[in-house]
Amino acid sequence: MSGHSKIPEPVVERLCRYHRYLSRAIRQGIKQVPSRALAAMTGATPEQVRKDLSHFGAFGQRGVGYDAVNLRNQLRRLMGLDQTRRVIVIGVGHVGSALAGYPGFESRGFQVVALYDNNPARIGHMVQGLKVRDIASLAEDCQIEPVDIAILAVPEGAAQDVANIAVAAGVRALLNFAPTNLEVPPEVLVRSVDMTSELEFLSFWLAHKQSGAGTQSGA
Amino acid sequence: MSGHSKIPEPVVERLCRYHRYLSRAIRQGIKQVPSRALAAMTGATPEQVRKDLSHFGAFGQRGVGYDAVNLRNQLRRLMGLDQTRRVIVIGVGHVGSALAGYPGFESRGFQVVALYDNNPARIGHMVQGLKVRDIASLAEDCQIEPVDIAILAVPEGAAQDVANIAVAAGVRALLNFAPTNLEVPPEVLVRSVDMTSELEFLSFWLAHKQSGAGTQSGA
Repeated sequence: MSGHSKIPEPVVERLCRYHRYLSRAIRQGIKQVPSRALAAMTGATPEQVRKDLSHFGAFGQRGVGYDAVNLRNQLRRLMGLDQTRRVIVIGVGHVGSALAGYPGFESRGFQVVALYDNNPARIGHMVQGLKVRDIASLAEDCQIEPVDIAILAVPEGAAQDVANIAVAAGVRALLNFAPTNLEVPPEVLVRSVDMTSELEFLSFWLAHKQSGAGTQSGA
Repeated sequence: MSGHSKIPEPVVERLCRYHRYLSRAIRQGIKQVPSRALAAMTGATPEQVRKDLSHFGAFGQRGVGYDAVNLRNQLRRLMGLDQTRRVIVIGVGHVGSALAGYPGFESRGFQVVALYDNNPARIGHMVQGLKVRDIASLAEDCQIEPVDIAILAVPEGAAQDVANIAVAAGVRALLNFAPTNLEVPPEVLVRSVDMTSELEFLSFWLAHKQSGAGTQSGA
């Protein structure tokens, strides 16, 4: 339990977006970033941005904004992105294989260190430059080198069993691509990505042509 | 603009989850669903569930709950899921190919009708049973058969151009997998899925071991 233990999820999501925007701005040579630019990125108001950031002791200068490098570095530490995170992918079907090679991971500090499956036809084969391991060896592998995050790209019916195996092996953060809710102990966090939910959201919108359109939303 | 035009996004997201839960419950032979079961699915309170659903004229019976089939059918109509949605995938790299064959789409009324790319090495090849078409033919194809939703699985640098092409072709709903914000006219809705954001969220949590853990979150 830390001093930041009660930050609401939408705030954390905005912090992630500020960090991403700042990284891009810095690459483009931008030195100062006004809160309205950060607001435009996230659908928040400039006031909200200033409030989000002041929580962490980051204050902009009136009429000038935030020092881009400083703020990026502060967010980086805050989000634990100043260290490389060891990530595994469990399930190397189409989705898992795509994730194993997702170019955005490595460049943002997430290193896919191993792939697992329970299918003998896949175990031992190379996928995206890594040899697919037997899920049965996960617990032992984690004793040698702990894993920070497990990405679950397995069928719906297998997801809970696989989550149990990962949790038993000591993994404390799961990214779940199966369209099912997982039960995990309180010391574990699950984030779920359901592609079809996003399409259903769009379908609702098409059916109703909601106002507030033209905005960005989603994970 | 309809009577539902001001439903906040989190409510729409919960409606999607209720619908999914009910579909599963019905397959398992469940006839009545209490609001606390729907609440457990979404992290909302039972009161919130009743409020969400009463907006749409759906009322449960005290001590019994909701009639599962009735409520599912109501949500289905409300969300426009009683019609098949025509979906295209633009960009058939690893991510696009995985999405083209994602098993959850077809079973939930989203039919992937065509794949597009601008890479001559991919155009004309078969991926997941569909021939990859030239993105240059999209506008013409849409005149013959309109497209409801375009999934953009292209590199970050190409995403805005591809979005412009899709919007010019008449597509009104985009699901964007590139880690970039897209500018679209007000009659178009973009939902964004950024895999790395989810990992960053988990990283923040690992760095702070937030309270309220053990819960489900995310898109």
